[in-house]
Amino acid sequence: MPNANVKGPYPAEGMAAYAPTGPHKRMTFQRRALGPKDVAIKIHYGAICHSDIHTIHEDWGPVTFPQIVGHEITGTVVEVGSSASKFAVGARVGVGTMVNSCRVCAECQAGHENYCLAGNVQTYASKDRDGTITQGGYSTFIVVDEDFVIRVPDALDLAAAAPLMCAGITVYSPLRHWGVSAGKRVAIVGMGGLGHLAVKLASALGAEVTVFTTSPEKASDAKRFGARNVVVNRDGADFAQYRHAFDFALDTVPYKHDLNRFIPMLKRDATYCRVGVGNVADSNEIGQMGLVMYRNALAGSNTGGIRETQDLVDFCALHRIQPEITKIAMDGIDDAWTKVVAKQARYRFVIDVQGR
Amino acid sequence: MPNANVKGPYPAEGMAAYAPTGPHKRMTFQRRALGPKDVAIKIHYGAICHSDIHTIHEDWGPVTFPQIVGHEITGTVVEVGSSASKFAVGARVGVGTMVNSCRVCAECQAGHENYCLAGNVQTYASKDRDGTITQGGYSTFIVVDEDFVIRVPDALDLAAAAPLMCAGITVYSPLRHWGVSAGKRVAIVGMGGLGHLAVKLASALGAEVTVFTTSPEKASDAKRFGARNVVVNRDGADFAQYRHAFDFALDTVPYKHDLNRFIPMLKRDATYCRVGVGNVADSNEIGQMGLVMYRNALAGSNTGGIRETQDLVDFCALHRIQPEITKIAMDGIDDAWTKVVAKQARYRFVIDVQGR
Repeated sequence: MPNANVKGPYPAEGMAAYAPTGPHKRMTFQRRALGPKDVAIKIHYGAICHSDIHTIHEDWGPVTFPQIVGHEITGTVVEVGSSASKFAVGARVGVGTMVNSCRVCAECQAGHENYCLAGNVQTYASKDRDGTITQGGYSTFIVVDEDFVIRVPDALDLAAAAPLMCAGITVYSPLRHWGVSAGKRVAIVGMGGLGHLAVKLASALGAEVTVFTTSPEKASDAKRFGARNVVVNRDGADFAQYRHAFDFALDTVPYKHDLNRFIPMLKRDATYCRVGVGNVADSNEIGQMGLVMYRNALAGSNTGGIRETQDLVDFCALHRIQPEITKIAMDGIDDAWTKVVAKQARYRFVIDVQGR
Repeated sequence: MPNANVKGPYPAEGMAAYAPTGPHKRMTFQRRALGPKDVAIKIHYGAICHSDIHTIHEDWGPVTFPQIVGHEITGTVVEVGSSASKFAVGARVGVGTMVNSCRVCAECQAGHENYCLAGNVQTYASKDRDGTITQGGYSTFIVVDEDFVIRVPDALDLAAAAPLMCAGITVYSPLRHWGVSAGKRVAIVGMGGLGHLAVKLASALGAEVTVFTTSPEKASDAKRFGARNVVVNRDGADFAQYRHAFDFALDTVPYKHDLNRFIPMLKRDATYCRVGVGNVADSNEIGQMGLVMYRNALAGSNTGGIRETQDLVDFCALHRIQPEITKIAMDGIDDAWTKVVAKQARYRFVIDVQGR
């Protein structure tokens, strides 16, 4: 017998992939009925992250098709569960890579839901608590536990805020963890969706930023985003002037490339952190002698927790930092994906979901 | 015209390699005349380090033959330069991997002569300030600036103290840098010359030590050295019970091996540090996803500074920690090298230089 207190389920429409290759197609489906702690969000904007492409290409494991991806979501709250208290109807909100976690492990308790020891529920292509496979933000509607929803301040444009939910937090978290601040010299390797935000954020944190990019035409943008120096990263490029120059390096390149050229640019004890992950089978090949010579480290970092994501969004509102975006319509996804792979995004495609 | 105040040069005899392969042969040569800050040391003991073998095999670059290696040296001071003040004739002393550095760079000033930005002078196979190639400790005599000489307390056996000068400091420095102490869980991977000292030192620092070894017969030794747990590291061995178990891992294996099996045993933010370096052309192959999933790092570390080496030696004297050694004669070097490569050292061969 239906419970009159339960709202929904909510009909939604999205752009689904039906195979690892091939065009997205429109799919209608139901979002779950609103649980007591859930909020229902009308999605206005869903941004395109390289992870979406890796997932559908099955670079990270098998996918159950049809699959709607997208984990850089902004919208407005349209319904609130019976015991949900954090958001009112009409609130401007965001959803990132996670929609749930165990809540009880040491990581969740410490606010690191992204490192949940039981494995969190990802926003798409992940098994939800009810056994269904989660569907992402290339869609009109989503129902999410309020603890995994981010408040978007009025100072931020709702479309431009979307990429903060994954690209933004993925670079912000390591910048903060490794102490990027005034007086520090930081290398940002790769200036795409993640990298351009890393440049803006590291600069706003007070660091002196040097960008390494394979795209010479991005140099003026890099300066505009706050970089002090831009180095064109060609094969055989001479990095000698940056020997032992950097307190920290953040590598946002989402595919395998030669890291041994970069390690000697680190100061003693400095870390080279990669956040881009390409095909899961790819290994870094990194010479041990390079790491040994100056006690350096190659690290990884995976998005950030919910509290830290809110901190990032608030930081961006305060410092007037916004991702550079190109708005597209739902039927522009396939073309945008081609451009992302071809490094032609400047710097994030955001789907105007309601404008379809 | 000879200066009557200058003592020496000192005749010395050593066991030199004449080619990347082939037996050592006796060689007589002169140590330099004593400079004002030098001390002349009669070498009693020279230990065999895997680095000696890598060097002569030219794994780390070309070598000018004949070359005498050895950088784990203990002996007694027999002469003191005119303005040297740290050691008296008869003092028990040690010499490690370095015999000089620039003294003025930020690293030297901070006591990290091992990371000297100008490049320090290594004890052997390195260009000395006078342009000659340094000759190491498989010899009867050495002349060294007193700032690069370590005091050996009476509580330590002079033969057993020799391996502290490289093996000891190489593991002690990262254990201290990464905060190994009471309450920490530490993995020691590989239990040879370096690893067995890492087990003793990490245990003495209060950590709970788990040893990963490919030699099952070393298990009882590991326990005797202070390890709580011993895991036999076979291909396909199941490490599941150690998932996210360790605050730090120190890998002492001097050749390429599969690191991806070890990274998931680290806690969040923990570091896997390698100190063993094999052929310089070998790369670590390490999956980026493994590092990303729990914000882990692969690091390297290179010996330690002079002050830190003295600290280690004093720590060992205080805690009665000594390397496990097998004494050999000068003409036993070739046989000992074969055993080191075959993992048959238990745990360090020490050449009784004067007993030839």
